[in-house]
Amino acid sequence: MAPINLNPADKAFEARLRFCLPKVALRPLTSAYLEEPRGLFHGVGGLLAAPGSVEEVSTLIKACADARVGVVPYGGGTGLVGGQVMAGGPAPVILSLERMRAIREVFPSENIMIAEAGAVLADVQNAAEVAARLFPLSLASEGSARIGGLLSTNAGGVNVLRYGNARDLCLGLEAVLPDGSIWHGLKRLRKDNTGYDLRGLLVGAEGTLGVITAASLRLFARPAEVGTALMVVPDPAAALALFSLINSQLSAGVSAFELISGAGMEFLAETGCPARAPFDEIPDWAVLIELGLGPEQNADTMLEKLFETGALAGLVSDGVVAHSGPQRAALWAMREEIPEANKRLGSLSSHDISLPLSVIPEFTQRAGAAIAALGPFRVNAFGHLGDGNLHYNVFAPKGKTRDNYPGSKEKIRETVYEMVHEYGGSFSAEHGIGRLKVAELQRFADPAKLAAMRAVKTALDPTGIMNPGVIFG
Amino acid sequence: MAPINLNPADKAFEARLRFCLPKVALRPLTSAYLEEPRGLFHGVGGLLAAPGSVEEVSTLIKACADARVGVVPYGGGTGLVGGQVMAGGPAPVILSLERMRAIREVFPSENIMIAEAGAVLADVQNAAEVAARLFPLSLASEGSARIGGLLSTNAGGVNVLRYGNARDLCLGLEAVLPDGSIWHGLKRLRKDNTGYDLRGLLVGAEGTLGVITAASLRLFARPAEVGTALMVVPDPAAALALFSLINSQLSAGVSAFELISGAGMEFLAETGCPARAPFDEIPDWAVLIELGLGPEQNADTMLEKLFETGALAGLVSDGVVAHSGPQRAALWAMREEIPEANKRLGSLSSHDISLPLSVIPEFTQRAGAAIAALGPFRVNAFGHLGDGNLHYNVFAPKGKTRDNYPGSKEKIRETVYEMVHEYGGSFSAEHGIGRLKVAELQRFADPAKLAAMRAVKTALDPTGIMNPGVIFG
Repeated sequence: MAPINLNPADKAFEARLRFCLPKVALRPLTSAYLEEPRGLFHGVGGLLAAPGSVEEVSTLIKACADARVGVVPYGGGTGLVGGQVMAGGPAPVILSLERMRAIREVFPSENIMIAEAGAVLADVQNAAEVAARLFPLSLASEGSARIGGLLSTNAGGVNVLRYGNARDLCLGLEAVLPDGSIWHGLKRLRKDNTGYDLRGLLVGAEGTLGVITAASLRLFARPAEVGTALMVVPDPAAALALFSLINSQLSAGVSAFELISGAGMEFLAETGCPARAPFDEIPDWAVLIELGLGPEQNADTMLEKLFETGALAGLVSDGVVAHSGPQRAALWAMREEIPEANKRLGSLSSHDISLPLSVIPEFTQRAGAAIAALGPFRVNAFGHLGDGNLHYNVFAPKGKTRDNYPGSKEKIRETVYEMVHEYGGSFSAEHGIGRLKVAELQRFADPAKLAAMRAVKTALDPTGIMNPGVIFG
Repeated sequence: MAPINLNPADKAFEARLRFCLPKVALRPLTSAYLEEPRGLFHGVGGLLAAPGSVEEVSTLIKACADARVGVVPYGGGTGLVGGQVMAGGPAPVILSLERMRAIREVFPSENIMIAEAGAVLADVQNAAEVAARLFPLSLASEGSARIGGLLSTNAGGVNVLRYGNARDLCLGLEAVLPDGSIWHGLKRLRKDNTGYDLRGLLVGAEGTLGVITAASLRLFARPAEVGTALMVVPDPAAALALFSLINSQLSAGVSAFELISGAGMEFLAETGCPARAPFDEIPDWAVLIELGLGPEQNADTMLEKLFETGALAGLVSDGVVAHSGPQRAALWAMREEIPEANKRLGSLSSHDISLPLSVIPEFTQRAGAAIAALGPFRVNAFGHLGDGNLHYNVFAPKGKTRDNYPGSKEKIRETVYEMVHEYGGSFSAEHGIGRLKVAELQRFADPAKLAAMRAVKTALDPTGIMNPGVIFG
């Protein structure tokens, strides 16, 4: 399903846009729009447009549909699968939402906020906090990532466990469909069974079915009591048993349950990242636990009780509970700096996988052995264990780089994805398909689902202008 | 989008099915399959098929697609909008999931269950309980409603507030698409960003995009502490303020927050339903609150505290806290018998609406006045207040019946739906469109959304065999 007969956004098309859009909506294209965080894709160029309203987005999309010019929606540029960068083909319009960044309205008593697609996640979080509410979506790139992109990729992060992914946090959308029509769907309703779930379809469609311009977002009460602890566990099986234990001790309230590997903790020192594990000796495995409780509960007491019962059961051997904001921030910094340490080292191959919870211990053992059979590699498996989502990244041994192991990337990826598939897992838990995982989707997706996806794409975007090359290649 | 050129499931077609399906899959059609709870639709007849496996469903759908014979998927028959009964047109195949009722597997440590579409909700709840887990979907028809129908209508019920609707409780599906292809999508993953959300699209599609044959369902820890209280409030505004108060007192744990009107409590006695409000004098309004907390918390203490702070703020004037299982059951029986009382009285017009939470007080006032202007009617507005979902039902005055007010139904419906639309609400919060609300969908749905829905329907079901007449008419 390659884009068929798309035309470049050439000078003539630019002139046409200048005629129908305000001057400020067409901006000089800088190299920032043609790069992505991992440096795997480099944009082919294009025409940068930054419309200021949903009507301008509609005008733009109509012009693109008429002229069969591709449209690459652009949020904060933080996506990890190349969805925001078109590396080949006729130069597209790069449609940045950067001028649509308003928090249109906050309804504290309804726990709802209406935010435009260009609003940066940190600003949305802050606006919620000002209203004494919580917008729980939280991930490493929250200072740059924009709501439209976060929704289009159905972003995950550290709080999915409790509050759900981006799709779960969205009650309604305003969006421009591939024919330029505007869907005014910013409902503030928890329940609305009036036809197909177009909201759920556009969320996670990675810009291939239209452009999200604003969203109705769910807010939550801020937990009165927050507790954070890092506990040393012997292995992932013990980590999962500890997860069961805390869930049996609390009816709700586990906001995050993150696995951290010894390799990740070592990488921090090795790469000069400032955060450190608060242990004299770096353990093989640890879990970072965050609780968010009501005013009647004491989070530290709960964590200490968990440690005691966990220790009795042989699940934990050491641990620290944060007793202040700075201590909490230090524990989280350790978690949040691991991706940076990974980046500085440069992985041989990185995998954003999810698995049924109960197979994770067996998977980590078997995958570790299979990787070891390929070479003297180091594995940093870490992430959102409570969701079954691991970032399973493989590195050269200390003192070596990926350049010492040419050809390993493909073998490692093949090994990991095949095993993930065998266990009923996913090769893309939270990052999406973008342009990076098109081949994996073709290979591992259920054929009937894939055919249905193609049918939906063709039905809604018959000329294939929306984010060409993404998902379907 | 009327079904185009569908053929009847005639004797020749029946013979064809007998050739390709086991004998047991074709059953005598009884009148039960041609009726629905409110008696608004009477089935045109048809051929009853009850396949025993997803492969048999696939065989059946392929035969129907080849012969252009309509398919009406049939679950427990409890839907309230006629989605399960085709009242006109060429006789369809009625595809009952009654033989596919297995709980295929329970994964307690993953909080996941795989259930077939024909499993009755009560059986699914029980299977979860046996595994010391909770499947939280709960509604009045749970003794008959089947999982496939509950998912196809994205059912709601009393626990949506805390656990979400049917879509939120479903992680994956096995389904047969309109071309007969089987989607094997029973993933046990919390996070899986590999393409469009086909799961979310089929859930709530009311059988118009395929047949769900099994689902991967989310389970939860059972709350260690349950508390139930009925509190008298002066009006819906106070009820909502009380809802805010409890949410600020608990970080999580409000499982249900139901509004009950004085009219509803009066109807119980008037119609001879056994349940009674536990007050000497029937109040204008009350709320039924259920908490589900962890073992460290005391639910009754929390409810008593809520009552005290609510009373100080003038939000509650009377109340009872259940101190035993039977007391809890009695309070819930009062809530659950109200629909039966409504049915015995026979409403002039019933409306399953949702509204932004903050407009509910104004809406109930204004709608009450507008109904009063139409006649001496009684309004029973009750339901899932915490979700903004009210069942807003209008009745003749005491001693009269709907036959005394011919023509009122349309005027009342018009008044209610227009006002709901004005406030950004929904004319179908949890029941769906079915065949009952096709005209309302055409009238109130966003045109761009409606066009996108039609495009998706045409793309996935080009011959229009799946549940003809539902959603699109």
